[in-house]
Amino acid sequence: MKSINLNYQYNKSHRMIVLLFLFFTPLAFASGGGENTINLLWIPIILLLAKLSSLVEKIKQPAVLGELIIGVIIGNLFLFGINIFEPIKTNHIILFLAELGVVILLFQIGLESNIEEMRKVGFRALLVAVVGVALPFALGFYVGQLLMPGLDFNSYLFLGATLTATSVGITGRVFKDLNKLQTKEAQIVLGAAVIDDVIGLIILAVVSAIVVTGAVSVSNISMITMKAVAFLVLALFLGQLLAPKIGQIFSKIHSGMSMRFTLVISLGLIFAYLAHLAGLAPIIGAFAAGLLLEPVHFNRFDHPEINEEINKAIIDTDDNTKEKVNNILSKHNDHHMNYLVEPLGYFLVPIFFVITGMQVKLETLFDPKILAIALAITAVAFIGKLASGLMAGKDVNKWIVGWGMAPRGEVGLIFAMIGNQLGVISEELFSVIIIMVILTTLFTPPILNYLLRKS
Amino acid sequence: MKSINLNYQYNKSHRMIVLLFLFFTPLAFASGGGENTINLLWIPIILLLAKLSSLVEKIKQPAVLGELIIGVIIGNLFLFGINIFEPIKTNHIILFLAELGVVILLFQIGLESNIEEMRKVGFRALLVAVVGVALPFALGFYVGQLLMPGLDFNSYLFLGATLTATSVGITGRVFKDLNKLQTKEAQIVLGAAVIDDVIGLIILAVVSAIVVTGAVSVSNISMITMKAVAFLVLALFLGQLLAPKIGQIFSKIHSGMSMRFTLVISLGLIFAYLAHLAGLAPIIGAFAAGLLLEPVHFNRFDHPEINEEINKAIIDTDDNTKEKVNNILSKHNDHHMNYLVEPLGYFLVPIFFVITGMQVKLETLFDPKILAIALAITAVAFIGKLASGLMAGKDVNKWIVGWGMAPRGEVGLIFAMIGNQLGVISEELFSVIIIMVILTTLFTPPILNYLLRKS
Repeated sequence: MKSINLNYQYNKSHRMIVLLFLFFTPLAFASGGGENTINLLWIPIILLLAKLSSLVEKIKQPAVLGELIIGVIIGNLFLFGINIFEPIKTNHIILFLAELGVVILLFQIGLESNIEEMRKVGFRALLVAVVGVALPFALGFYVGQLLMPGLDFNSYLFLGATLTATSVGITGRVFKDLNKLQTKEAQIVLGAAVIDDVIGLIILAVVSAIVVTGAVSVSNISMITMKAVAFLVLALFLGQLLAPKIGQIFSKIHSGMSMRFTLVISLGLIFAYLAHLAGLAPIIGAFAAGLLLEPVHFNRFDHPEINEEINKAIIDTDDNTKEKVNNILSKHNDHHMNYLVEPLGYFLVPIFFVITGMQVKLETLFDPKILAIALAITAVAFIGKLASGLMAGKDVNKWIVGWGMAPRGEVGLIFAMIGNQLGVISEELFSVIIIMVILTTLFTPPILNYLLRKS
Repeated sequence: MKSINLNYQYNKSHRMIVLLFLFFTPLAFASGGGENTINLLWIPIILLLAKLSSLVEKIKQPAVLGELIIGVIIGNLFLFGINIFEPIKTNHIILFLAELGVVILLFQIGLESNIEEMRKVGFRALLVAVVGVALPFALGFYVGQLLMPGLDFNSYLFLGATLTATSVGITGRVFKDLNKLQTKEAQIVLGAAVIDDVIGLIILAVVSAIVVTGAVSVSNISMITMKAVAFLVLALFLGQLLAPKIGQIFSKIHSGMSMRFTLVISLGLIFAYLAHLAGLAPIIGAFAAGLLLEPVHFNRFDHPEINEEINKAIIDTDDNTKEKVNNILSKHNDHHMNYLVEPLGYFLVPIFFVITGMQVKLETLFDPKILAIALAITAVAFIGKLASGLMAGKDVNKWIVGWGMAPRGEVGLIFAMIGNQLGVISEELFSVIIIMVILTTLFTPPILNYLLRKS
């Protein structure tokens, strides 16, 4: 009798990757190549680098940290005169794939979350979000005046606004890497991050209106708010009612895997676009779509042919064994929606985090005065969000929630860039904000990792 | 006892899609939207349209035909004043995703092909390729002079050159849709298409050199030939020696699915890029990479956790049952490399075929004189390739091979566009070529489908 349990051998994987990588990288520079065909090389280079960076898992860190760091490295090699990776930064196709990557990630996180569980922690998430916006805003506004006196009033407003951001991508990925998306802490952070995105949108609109017109147009602001809230209400509350029905309908569709895949992924992308229409980040829509498609609604899917064949093979065994085998198979079926989307995630998600890392400008760290101010603002940024974690209520690790809210990531960068375009953020203040975004983004994964492993 | 055999219900799938589609399409036009964010909507629209078009499967046609036709429809709606789909035609990101799609498709076809089987039919594929190039070239050159007298000598040369092309994407997809990639006919066509790409490359270089300089530079042509042949020799012949070793090394890598996925997909994309460097079409490289990664080398992969759990569950049953279950599981393991790549295929491949369909310009069919000439040229195009099928030797259906070589697809379009840029192809001749490409591309899938189902 052959054993089903196959022999696996570990190791060699990383050596293999280094080999592959050393072999193929020089080819990038040997070529003229079509304008877009070069991406056939950039994509595997980014993916292989991301996998190389997953060496951080050996020191028990989440893979996302490695991807961010490798991004920081290749994004700053130009400081040493190495410019080979620079074209990526302005490559529209790679940048789109990165955007698509974070949309797919939040869709996956939504798929792994449970709308019912989220509703249960809804009020706590609201409290965390409100404090996580109000406190960092107030701290940024006042500490900014203290540390950098003499700037325009609007500058302090924008600094405060930037500190309110939460990058759900970073935190969500850490929870996902460590298989902790089902914890109450994760649900609270995800819920708070969604609410935070809505509040952040309103703050951005208010602050921008003050900067541009000197006053706030109530009708304008309420229009923005209404669009965002309408989307969320339709997506989440109606969705909660309709989710089981959608699941039922989807489970009846059986025209092969490709049909299911297409419907699932299309729903995710369309919701992402609808959120964008409502003025929210596309990732919020993707997350909402993922919530609607709860895995439990899809347990009729998966490999019917395997199930059937195994069913036939064990027909002579006792009922107890049959039931055990049945349970194993249906347990794995439960996760199938995710299995279907996952390879797309492997393809796109690392691109997002490597690109995010590449946007880190290490040269901003070189000015000691700016660095000192930035460190103080970073401390304030952490304090504001950690305090919000205290609102998470009992039965949860408040520190995990607080740190989960801490990374500003791409959301913080967007705020800073809008402020820059409006001309209210000086070169110096911009550097301070960038450093704060970098530090909150890079320090959160290892700390969150430590807290999650300890708890 | 619950039964493992779950209840499936067919139908409703298409109604659902129509519903989804009707609901979401108008949103495309309600939005301003970011430059690239709009693609979050275009992608699901294209994918849902592609799935809607899979209704052709109900009349026993391969899905690719539906995708091409829906592409033709939305690509020509502007003739009726409906311009909503026009932006797709110049959308760089969608066009890149389409290019990536056909690369992934040929990679998958390579994965499903067997290098040993291909070697066995190598000589026959060579014969088919040589006749399939020589005869259409000669026919195009002479029949062109007969039907359209008075054109430049070089025009007839280019017409002949365009007729030599073979679109392996279309044919390969039909074989794949019908699960016939393992047949000898498929292997011969795939082999011949690869050889055809090399010969076509040389012909294009020679003809272009004649047009531009009036003479042929031997050193230039031999350089082009050498690069292409060197790539193929390295990729295929050395690959054949190394494939089992590569497979062994890959099978020892066990750092999770994402690692395997990344290595596999990176190999495919890097080979596609190397082929591009060698002057060949990227799809040829992707196909070669797929050949190296034969599924049989990966039977150590797949869900170890399921295997292990089931193994435990049936521990008390007899050896015979265990072996049966074991065999079922390892049979499904065998195909795992493909399972891993397939969702990426679902996402990208339909984009390629819808976009290919969109490039069909129906207005070229409106001029009766041009249409008549084009029909004659199309007949010649079919005759040349069908005759090549006669070289396929015994034990195979020569008609399947011949029809398999017939579609010109994107390769023919590339030839026509280069001729256009060189100024040797008149507006009229260009229309004739486009119609020939359209007809060989659209008629082949249903005919091939008929022949394959009959055999």
